[in-house]
Amino acid sequence: MTTVPAAAGDPSKEQAVVFTRIRLADRFDVPNIHRLIHQMAEFELLTNLFSATESSLTSTLFPSPPLPPFRSFTILILELSHSPIPKSADDDDSNLGFRPILGRIVLKSTVVDPESSTFASPRGNGLVVAGFLLCFPNYSSFMGLPGIYVEDIFVREAWRRLGMGKMMLAAVAGEAARLGCGRVEWCVLDWNENAIAFYNGMGAEVLPQWRICRLTGEELSKFAVD
Amino acid sequence: MTTVPAAAGDPSKEQAVVFTRIRLADRFDVPNIHRLIHQMAEFELLTNLFSATESSLTSTLFPSPPLPPFRSFTILILELSHSPIPKSADDDDSNLGFRPILGRIVLKSTVVDPESSTFASPRGNGLVVAGFLLCFPNYSSFMGLPGIYVEDIFVREAWRRLGMGKMMLAAVAGEAARLGCGRVEWCVLDWNENAIAFYNGMGAEVLPQWRICRLTGEELSKFAVD
Repeated sequence: MTTVPAAAGDPSKEQAVVFTRIRLADRFDVPNIHRLIHQMAEFELLTNLFSATESSLTSTLFPSPPLPPFRSFTILILELSHSPIPKSADDDDSNLGFRPILGRIVLKSTVVDPESSTFASPRGNGLVVAGFLLCFPNYSSFMGLPGIYVEDIFVREAWRRLGMGKMMLAAVAGEAARLGCGRVEWCVLDWNENAIAFYNGMGAEVLPQWRICRLTGEELSKFAVD
Repeated sequence: MTTVPAAAGDPSKEQAVVFTRIRLADRFDVPNIHRLIHQMAEFELLTNLFSATESSLTSTLFPSPPLPPFRSFTILILELSHSPIPKSADDDDSNLGFRPILGRIVLKSTVVDPESSTFASPRGNGLVVAGFLLCFPNYSSFMGLPGIYVEDIFVREAWRRLGMGKMMLAAVAGEAARLGCGRVEWCVLDWNENAIAFYNGMGAEVLPQWRICRLTGEELSKFAVD
């Protein structure tokens, strides 16, 4: 772990720092994305619903040529490094219309990431993938404006409670504001009080009365028409 | 109102019938769509959130050239006629990849529609617009498959409780099944027991634990980045 001098006034102490980058995913990220989605299914005790394959993810999320980000299904990848991440590595993503967001997080204690080799970034340079966010456009008819819906925010266990989820959500909110979107929406489980307090603190409203209806599997197939 | 002979066994009675068509909306439908959305805001007691204009709807929902339906924001229009709607009028929509769905509904009593001239269809032929549905793609990462999210289903007051909302929802479900989508989702208010019972009857599951989080207005603007 890289260490940097602490703030003036306590020069004897050093603080552990991790450098972060949020960038657009591409096809080369699919193996990591597939593993992250599976971990998310395990976390939510919903592996029975997990049927994604690397092939299905590639064909549905990464068309050739790529679509502009935030206008269709979009995945952001959160990468970490022990050393500062050079800006020069961002050129590919900037061409697609999203400038990677660099940051750093001061750690209160050392983080052990037992999965760091499994989640090595395809971009190399010792970067490790720590999480992802999946979003796509939605629409507010009352406003007559597009918005962005965040389907998934996931950070691997070793890196939780460090503000990384918020970094990704803020990246989307910033992009939504820049694009003139009317709103950003996502879902939370009603018993997840920590998450709800956290989202409220970001300025989000949790809508108490709306429930999601879902038609899937055989019940959906019944509606197939010739 | 057109009348047709009743079923054999009671030849003395005639039944009122209305003929229906579900088709893709286009730019010429925007004035009607704008009025329908405003009625929906009134119905939900949310006119304070209504800021859509014909101009914002046109520019955000109807790009030139049009995108394929169900791959981006998509509006279906429900039209009614007192007489059978000829199939020949469907050519335009078929070219875009959605074949209009024709139907008929036997009415138990005469329907008076005081707004029929306000909601005349731009397609002429005495067609009247009775409602609309707005949907767009969403994505299930567990399935690794796109789905369809239905943002709005609205039928004007005169034509409610006749199954027209279900006709539009079934049209989307049929298209979703045909396109290989993993699921169709929409939202319902938790106190709307009739709607919940109706959706359950269609085979849909109402998810009890998820809540929608929304970041909008000034709280969203704060995230704008340079």
